[in-house]
Amino acid sequence: MATATKSAAEKSSETTYRNKDAVNGEFVHVDAIDWQTMPEPFAHGGICWKLLHVSPELGAWTAYYKCPAGSYFSAHIHIGPGEYLLTKGKMEVRGGSAKGGETAYALGYGFEPSSARHDKTYFPIDSEFYMTFVGPLHWINEEDGSTVAITGWKELQDVWLQQTGQ
Amino acid sequence: MATATKSAAEKSSETTYRNKDAVNGEFVHVDAIDWQTMPEPFAHGGICWKLLHVSPELGAWTAYYKCPAGSYFSAHIHIGPGEYLLTKGKMEVRGGSAKGGETAYALGYGFEPSSARHDKTYFPIDSEFYMTFVGPLHWINEEDGSTVAITGWKELQDVWLQQTGQ
Amino acid sequence: MATATKSAAEKSSETTYRNKDAVNGEFVHVDAIDWQTMPEPFAHGGICWKLLHVSPELGAWTAYYKCPAGSYFSAHIHIGPGEYLLTKGKMEVRGGSAKGGETAYALGYGFEPSSARHDKTYFPIDSEFYMTFVGPLHWINEEDGSTVAITGWKELQDVWLQQTGQ
Amino acid sequence: MATATKSAAEKSSETTYRNKDAVNGEFVHVDAIDWQTMPEPFAHGGICWKLLHVSPELGAWTAYYKCPAGSYFSAHIHIGPGEYLLTKGKMEVRGGSAKGGETAYALGYGFEPSSARHDKTYFPIDSEFYMTFVGPLHWINEEDGSTVAITGWKELQDVWLQQTGQ
Repeated sequence: MATATKSAAEKSSETTYRNKDAVNGEFVHVDAIDWQTMPEPFAHGGICWKLLHVSPELGAWTAYYKCPAGSYFSAHIHIGPGEYLLTKGKMEVRGGSAKGGETAYALGYGFEPSSARHDKTYFPIDSEFYMTFVGPLHWINEEDGSTVAITGWKELQDVWLQQTGQ
Repeated sequence: MATATKSAAEKSSETTYRNKDAVNGEFVHVDAIDWQTMPEPFAHGGICWKLLHVSPELGAWTAYYKCPAGSYFSAHIHIGPGEYLLTKGKMEVRGGSAKGGETAYALGYGFEPSSARHDKTYFPIDSEFYMTFVGPLHWINEEDGSTVAITGWKELQDVWLQQTGQ
Repeated sequence: MATATKSAAEKSSETTYRNKDAVNGEFVHVDAIDWQTMPEPFAHGGICWKLLHVSPELGAWTAYYKCPAGSYFSAHIHIGPGEYLLTKGKMEVRGGSAKGGETAYALGYGFEPSSARHDKTYFPIDSEFYMTFVGPLHWINEEDGSTVAITGWKELQDVWLQQTGQ
Repeated sequence: MATATKSAAEKSSETTYRNKDAVNGEFVHVDAIDWQTMPEPFAHGGICWKLLHVSPELGAWTAYYKCPAGSYFSAHIHIGPGEYLLTKGKMEVRGGSAKGGETAYALGYGFEPSSARHDKTYFPIDSEFYMTFVGPLHWINEEDGSTVAITGWKELQDVWLQQTGQ
């Protein structure tokens, strides 16, 4: 029987599964964090970011972005839902309203559902936004939809720690 | 057998469980939404809100709050995790830093874990914040912790629809 | 400025917010865990349980239940969504199909949405089920809907640790 | 101003964002659903499945698997967390306990965290398991980790509908 083959050590480790600490609260002053540059091929034109939070259990994460006039994100799919608050400027999603997409102005709120595909996301003027994500971003080649990279809380945390010299 | 007792109608309704539509994206210009007053006993001193989003499946919801100098929220427990961006002003959580709690300044980001208890949350100056919530708020009597109300996405949507005459 | 008032200690603690470990995998042989009795007023008639998992970040938890013939759960509301696999027996939800509710037979799968209210849930024959929950159960008085208790991952873990002498 | 350029139609559609229906409960008798074959290159050796539930909002889904002796799943990464109940048989994860991995016996419960990588998952005897997933599976080439496919609730629902002729 399975139960008979279990060692004491295994049994002891199992009890920890149901003896977990509550998660701590967090607070950061956003201005106290230095901007880091979002690397190509994900972002173009000098987009900077601050990683504010990661939630390893659900794979959620939160970031703040500064997007100079003319900058843009490459094509990507939101694997899980995401919500943003555009705090400054203007964001053209799917070509902007002039091409059948959407043009968001600050102060704007958006919900992007699981599987939402965004081709080039363009910032015609200096813009900033805050966004909470569940799950990774799946970066794709706009032409054929093939995978460029999948960046989740862990990959982003690794980039952040490297960029900030931690 | 269970399968033998199932009627055709039951069988038909069951198959629809696996043919669901994707969730739509959303965008709202926050300034285009009128402020509504947060009622007592939850808020005091003229706190106003805008309900930006509800996610019935997970029980998540998103709102924007305007808190005049001297206003405060009553004691509550966050049943699930929540994240906020303090976009303006100053928020004193758990008495503020002068009393062992925390004083948040804009631009500030905070993560409140599942089961976080907040007694009076006070705004010493005009403040605004954006917050995403998973699950309801559990409003309690500060003295004995007894339940005043549990307000989740559904109750809040009902209040919002009533306040906005929909 | 907020940034000027931050001490080195604060800054150091903040960096840990974005330097988190991945969550560990878990495995338990269910038969190796002893049954514990679900206490009144939540359960009646000898319902036993095994707590299999808690997820403090999202407030999710997982349990396995053994329900003798004639046992039942008291009225409760699922604050977040839950999913169950009835592995043995028969479960009458909302009076069972004879009274307009639902009668589940093993092997049966069910999804209970956020805010689902279940009055007495009755087991006419010996039954067992496995269930994953997001968020707490809100136990209520069936007559007036008033709160009896709210039991989430933390309260349940505390009960479990006490029952198993940990 | 953004508010000035909004048409009545836009405004009307926005109000629906905060007027949503609760999600319905679901129940299915698992035996009433016919087995479908899991296609290569994802599964080998005759693994069959039943799709029990999809949650489009969070990108979660639930399935039941029947795995004949000698069958296996190809290498994959769990993008979000998953939980399983092994109801019958034996499952060797990461080579099984003989090779430093884990061998699960029924009745067994397991939690797979966000980003868990599973190379060949092998069933030495006839086995069955139930599993709830958040987010897609990312199928990879075991040698170099390159992407084979990303299968989430939507892709799986499409396969299921096609297999069942719906």
